Amino acid sequence: MSLSAHETDSTKKVGKAVLEAIKAGAPNIDLSLLPDLVDMSPASITENVHAINSLCPDPRQKFVFEKLVTHLHDFAREVSLTTEEWMSAIHFLTATGKICSDIRQEFILLSDIFGLSALVDSMNHPVVAPATEGTVLGPFFTEDAKELEAGQSIASEGKGEYMWCEGRILDIEGNPVANCKIETWETDDEGLYDTQYEGRTEADCRGRLTSDENGYYSYRAILPTPYPIPNDGPVGGLLKSLNRHVFRPAHLHMMFYRDGYETLITALYFKGDPYLKSDAVFGVKTSLIVDPQLITDESKSRALGFKNGPYWHLEKDYVLLTSAQAEEQKRKSLAHYYSSLQ
Amino acid sequence: MSLSAHETDSTKKVGKAVLEAIKAGAPNIDLSLLPDLVDMSPASITENVHAINSLCPDPRQKFVFEKLVTHLHDFAREVSLTTEEWMSAIHFLTATGKICSDIRQEFILLSDIFGLSALVDSMNHPVVAPATEGTVLGPFFTEDAKELEAGQSIASEGKGEYMWCEGRILDIEGNPVANCKIETWETDDEGLYDTQYEGRTEADCRGRLTSDENGYYSYRAILPTPYPIPNDGPVGGLLKSLNRHVFRPAHLHMMFYRDGYETLITALYFKGDPYLKSDAVFGVKTSLIVDPQLITDESKSRALGFKNGPYWHLEKDYVLLTSAQAEEQKRKSLAHYYSSLQ
Repeated sequence: MSLSAHETDSTKKVGKAVLEAIKAGAPNIDLSLLPDLVDMSPASITENVHAINSLCPDPRQKFVFEKLVTHLHDFAREVSLTTEEWMSAIHFLTATGKICSDIRQEFILLSDIFGLSALVDSMNHPVVAPATEGTVLGPFFTEDAKELEAGQSIASEGKGEYMWCEGRILDIEGNPVANCKIETWETDDEGLYDTQYEGRTEADCRGRLTSDENGYYSYRAILPTPYPIPNDGPVGGLLKSLNRHVFRPAHLHMMFYRDGYETLITALYFKGDPYLKSDAVFGVKTSLIVDPQLITDESKSRALGFKNGPYWHLEKDYVLLTSAQAEEQKRKSLAHYYSSLQ
Repeated sequence: MSLSAHETDSTKKVGKAVLEAIKAGAPNIDLSLLPDLVDMSPASITENVHAINSLCPDPRQKFVFEKLVTHLHDFAREVSLTTEEWMSAIHFLTATGKICSDIRQEFILLSDIFGLSALVDSMNHPVVAPATEGTVLGPFFTEDAKELEAGQSIASEGKGEYMWCEGRILDIEGNPVANCKIETWETDDEGLYDTQYEGRTEADCRGRLTSDENGYYSYRAILPTPYPIPNDGPVGGLLKSLNRHVFRPAHLHMMFYRDGYETLITALYFKGDPYLKSDAVFGVKTSLIVDPQLITDESKSRALGFKNGPYWHLEKDYVLLTSAQAEEQKRKSLAHYYSSLQ
């Protein structure tokens, strides 16, 4: 006597593990809605993955994953990805996740060195003259910068060459933006952020200020220096294998936020920097390159609060969009998605 | 008096952090070889990332990364990826890496549910009749299966319904492949691999055998059951959001290796299984579906070494390619890459 293997009752068919997963909340899909996913070949796999993903209830997610799967498969087919290369990628991604911590984000770094961060940033923050251009946030922002009064220093003494920063925050009509919160952070003269020192107890080379009623701000800082992005992990190994350098030009990070205005995340770069044209993370915008002037008159230096020696004078105005203006521009920039869903 | 900020000596320009990174082995690229990476826009970023990656000394790596960056950027542009979605992806990938361990590979699972594993497998193991088709390895293979003599059981008593497996290993001309190493592994009746039980001390439902001089093999096993892929991590959450089920049809994993032959990684599936046509990882091939017969004659059962009760009789021959035959086929299948480098 013989029976076909699964001609038994249906509980038996699926087994305890399946029933328990469904009881615990795993989707229990009507199988008749699915295509026949058998004999997948390089020619048939993509449309079948789309079909099984097509029950996704969120139209945006469904759209994004259809494009993602298409590009992932097209990539694998176009390069005829080998099993060994696929396994290398699995190991690379695993190591990239493993090295991430509260103070290290290796996947953002990976996105940065592929130009993906710059691309996403530029699509989401289209240029709207005369508004100040944004650039990538980077992985070094912290929440614990000290609150400073106008003219105070973000850097402790001895961190680098003095720099005086001042200017105004304006809207695109040229009106002052008063009470605007400003976050600013930078490397020291060694090319290191405070978070890169062991035993950090408080923020340094970071400050939080507010513009005055005329939109004016001022603070003391230091001239930042170029530095390597973290390169002792998987991303550093990848850059080495690609024969790419790991350096960023010196920059001063700036972030501005006030209710009713689009938050501006940007940075200033410095004329003459050797890495200005080959930033490892593609962050430099011409409009963000500044050329501070060296002031050697020590009486001026002391009057601003510097202990001794010359200082670099950096004057820079920032122009913000209102939230409504930014939304309008973003909608235009992201028009492809909106039209694709109509 | 004023000077431009960086009109100082060159050591000063790059700073200590850059010089130390170069001393420690970071690539020190001739900057004049690089394009001007300034003002990256959605329209210009891709060609510029290609340009900076073009110093890669390995032509295959250079080719693969050019395609990778192109697809990554095209994907982001086509969906107009938002900053929030990009950040979700960063968090998802980080969590996927974090949950990986010696006995859990969430990135392989991610590749599996996107059909990428099936695609890479099918490109690298093209169908060559009458050779047995391969399928995905899956994340549950271990190195510690016990060595068994012909006719012994891979499963301890009580693990499920008895199954007798026998057949021959042949080459494509029908000649026996003697002394072929066989690895076989499966879930138990609960739909769990031995590695999914806490406190596992030794392998169960796994065995390692060798074909005899006639290419013949035989062993006792149990009828496996369908099961959910691990779904308590990021991939499980993703599948839930996509409204996809997390189940695989029951299958018996098989791996064959012998010097001079292409290693065959495959699995058998069972006729009538409810998930045969919607395998969560796209592994089912029609040619790998078997239909074992239930034998209720207990004297036969006891003669084969089963304690009591009926058993399922599974007879299956496997046909291997020689290494040379497999290389030839792989070269044809991966022809795109070879032609692209000519």
